[in-house]
Amino acid sequence: MTQDQTAPSPDPLDEEIDLDDARLRSVREALSNRDRMALDDLLEPLHGADIADLLEQITELERASLIELWQGQIDGEILSELDESLREEVLDALPAEDVAEAVRELDTDDVVDLVENLDDEDQADAILGALDDVDRVAVETALSYPEYSAGRLMQREVVVAPSFWSVGQAIDFLRNATDLPEHFYHVILTDPRMRPVGYVTLGKILGAPRDTALSDIEEDSFRTFDVTDPEEDVAYAFNQYHLISAPVVDADDRLMGVITIDDAIRILDEEAEEDILRLAGVDADEAISNRTRDVVRRRFPWLAVNLVTSILASLVIAQFDAVITQIVALAVLMPIVASMGGNAGTQSLTVAVRALATRDLTGANVWRVIRREVAAGAINGAAFAVIMGIVGVVWFGSPMLGVVIAVAMVINLIVAGLAGVGIPVILEKVGVDPALASGAFVTTVTDVVGFFAFLGLAALWLL
Amino acid sequence: MTQDQTAPSPDPLDEEIDLDDARLRSVREALSNRDRMALDDLLEPLHGADIADLLEQITELERASLIELWQGQIDGEILSELDESLREEVLDALPAEDVAEAVRELDTDDVVDLVENLDDEDQADAILGALDDVDRVAVETALSYPEYSAGRLMQREVVVAPSFWSVGQAIDFLRNATDLPEHFYHVILTDPRMRPVGYVTLGKILGAPRDTALSDIEEDSFRTFDVTDPEEDVAYAFNQYHLISAPVVDADDRLMGVITIDDAIRILDEEAEEDILRLAGVDADEAISNRTRDVVRRRFPWLAVNLVTSILASLVIAQFDAVITQIVALAVLMPIVASMGGNAGTQSLTVAVRALATRDLTGANVWRVIRREVAAGAINGAAFAVIMGIVGVVWFGSPMLGVVIAVAMVINLIVAGLAGVGIPVILEKVGVDPALASGAFVTTVTDVVGFFAFLGLAALWLL
Repeated sequence: MTQDQTAPSPDPLDEEIDLDDARLRSVREALSNRDRMALDDLLEPLHGADIADLLEQITELERASLIELWQGQIDGEILSELDESLREEVLDALPAEDVAEAVRELDTDDVVDLVENLDDEDQADAILGALDDVDRVAVETALSYPEYSAGRLMQREVVVAPSFWSVGQAIDFLRNATDLPEHFYHVILTDPRMRPVGYVTLGKILGAPRDTALSDIEEDSFRTFDVTDPEEDVAYAFNQYHLISAPVVDADDRLMGVITIDDAIRILDEEAEEDILRLAGVDADEAISNRTRDVVRRRFPWLAVNLVTSILASLVIAQFDAVITQIVALAVLMPIVASMGGNAGTQSLTVAVRALATRDLTGANVWRVIRREVAAGAINGAAFAVIMGIVGVVWFGSPMLGVVIAVAMVINLIVAGLAGVGIPVILEKVGVDPALASGAFVTTVTDVVGFFAFLGLAALWLL
Repeated sequence: MTQDQTAPSPDPLDEEIDLDDARLRSVREALSNRDRMALDDLLEPLHGADIADLLEQITELERASLIELWQGQIDGEILSELDESLREEVLDALPAEDVAEAVRELDTDDVVDLVENLDDEDQADAILGALDDVDRVAVETALSYPEYSAGRLMQREVVVAPSFWSVGQAIDFLRNATDLPEHFYHVILTDPRMRPVGYVTLGKILGAPRDTALSDIEEDSFRTFDVTDPEEDVAYAFNQYHLISAPVVDADDRLMGVITIDDAIRILDEEAEEDILRLAGVDADEAISNRTRDVVRRRFPWLAVNLVTSILASLVIAQFDAVITQIVALAVLMPIVASMGGNAGTQSLTVAVRALATRDLTGANVWRVIRREVAAGAINGAAFAVIMGIVGVVWFGSPMLGVVIAVAMVINLIVAGLAGVGIPVILEKVGVDPALASGAFVTTVTDVVGFFAFLGLAALWLL
């Protein structure tokens, strides 16, 4: 990607404008030499998002030294791009006047995002105190809405016009306005009671004759959100209906603010990230910049759950210790049945969790999907049953052992398909995030069923 | 979300405009009654994306019946929102003239997206044949770029102005233009050789006096992409730098098209989805609307890999069958050590894979992250070692068995941390998607190490 392409360049994408390993090494060098000039040269061309990434990738000591050496340059954009886990550290290290100046540059929605996750009350008060009255009231109003709601996401800065205006009136109004937002893509049309009734894209305003009525060129698809709508519904709608911005209204349908696509992308990203991490038993807030003690603390509970479920599986095995003593091949083969079940279950589970998140798995097709997963489990189970039956015979020379492992495999893969879809669907119904708890449930089921079927059949047929 | 809010409504979000289970049931009823009127009433208020979702959630028979009954209404938007796995089926069922009409409504990037994944050459030819010459050339040019490149993502429809123009000239030009794109947010400034040199937001054009030079109000951050840039780099840049649209240039830096945020969101979404599915051993193309035989076929290879790795683990166990025969408690407890290692490894792995995808794990911090994961593994390993040591003593009355399981647990969780970060980093270095293969590698390592450490130590210390 390139910036300021006035001079031709052979490959516009090999520019040094993005953060790469070489630049990062140079920054570290500049820090250890305490070379402010070099630091300026290295950091100034970077986008705030890249500087935030850089702060996340260097050590705590280097961060402190960068903040001290690069005085007055950490701006609002860098702060709002910074991972939550580092914000308090950086805010603490910054002089109060730098924080105040940085915060005043931000749109109100970014200030809300910055303040809402601070544990340090003094930092939050300092930030709010730096704002002018109008912005502070807007931020405080936003903070009065529930966490993860549309009210927290919206910015106060909106561009509105009465729905009876013409294109010419709108253009004249915009040209004379002194406080237009830095970025806006629509003009929201309102009725006399400030209720949004439609919106017009700037492209349509620019393309139409001056005497055209705004209401004649408004978009036919128009969606508003309520301040209390959950942010994930907002993100879903932006993605599903390709919105760029959308008005937010209060309980009386009055315009309160606007949500823009960049906020929606951030939420979409966070939701996907949350699903990925939770499916793997990782806390959704974990960041690569977390310290060891935070990682230990965050992962312990998930491992503890796994310990309990694996002890449960061990209790099943313990019921069959007499059988295992007689036929030690069972101990050798039993993890295969459990592992195949666990994997097949995780496949079904992941597909189901994602389909629930993207709202592709609904009441309309849930039974069809369950039937499909069970059938797929049975068919793949049968295929692996044949393979494992042969392995059992060849390895241990016992046809009956082959039959036992084959039947146990089919049973466990059918159960895996059933549990893999059924468990997340049930968790969703009772209001638990299916990504959060399904993994532990599903592997418990496949472990227990796998060991029980295999060892139980062995006890019946081999002794 | 609401549409057409002219009349006040108590809760604008309880509108029937979105697809929900009730509407879906009514559609099915209308289909089984072959009631075209009811079908019209139910489907017409829906957004194309929702109709596509509906088509994905009903059965194949119902789809055929809907397409037949709702003749002439499946438009380009619905087709381009439809999951790839269903496009050929729907295209096959549609009359040729409907396809032609649908396709002509689309921007060129959407036509490219539609055509590039069709296995059926006749369908692709029919679609290309329906386009006018200019659009067909644009689509064919796009198809000449590599798959998953910026050239495939861009649309031909761009709005450009010479960089020396004033705001007034731009406004007059836009007002008189007859072929403006349906949605655009920027005017791209070009030099006389059609190389993009900057861009101006429509908001800035509307907010500035007519005699302002466009170059005075251009955005200071300006990025272009090369037609051959990988789409994931494009998506990353849109997300990282909050872009709304960006020009695409050829090898001579000449403007070829523009990529807009909706395409970038789709790619971001697909990349996250791919990571989630691949981490769970599911084919990235799998969709909830896939038929059983596709699901069986797609999942089999992943399960086969798991079978091989779990047989490997069984081979380790088989080395110790004499020990297990003497102390059957080992067979009962050994899955716990392996399972804890597998879980801890999956935690580290998932964090590493995501951090690689979001470019937060780089050469700058990889050693720090590895040290952290190993340390976290050691500390959590020690904690669970104490717990399992106690369980070993209480359950089986053998202090030495407790020591064996405790030491094996610490070893396996340290190895899990190391493998969990090391394996994806190495795969990324050699150019393999870390999400694709890491899972199998990591659990193989933790299974083998877990069984070997536990049974090996038992053989040394307990016999």
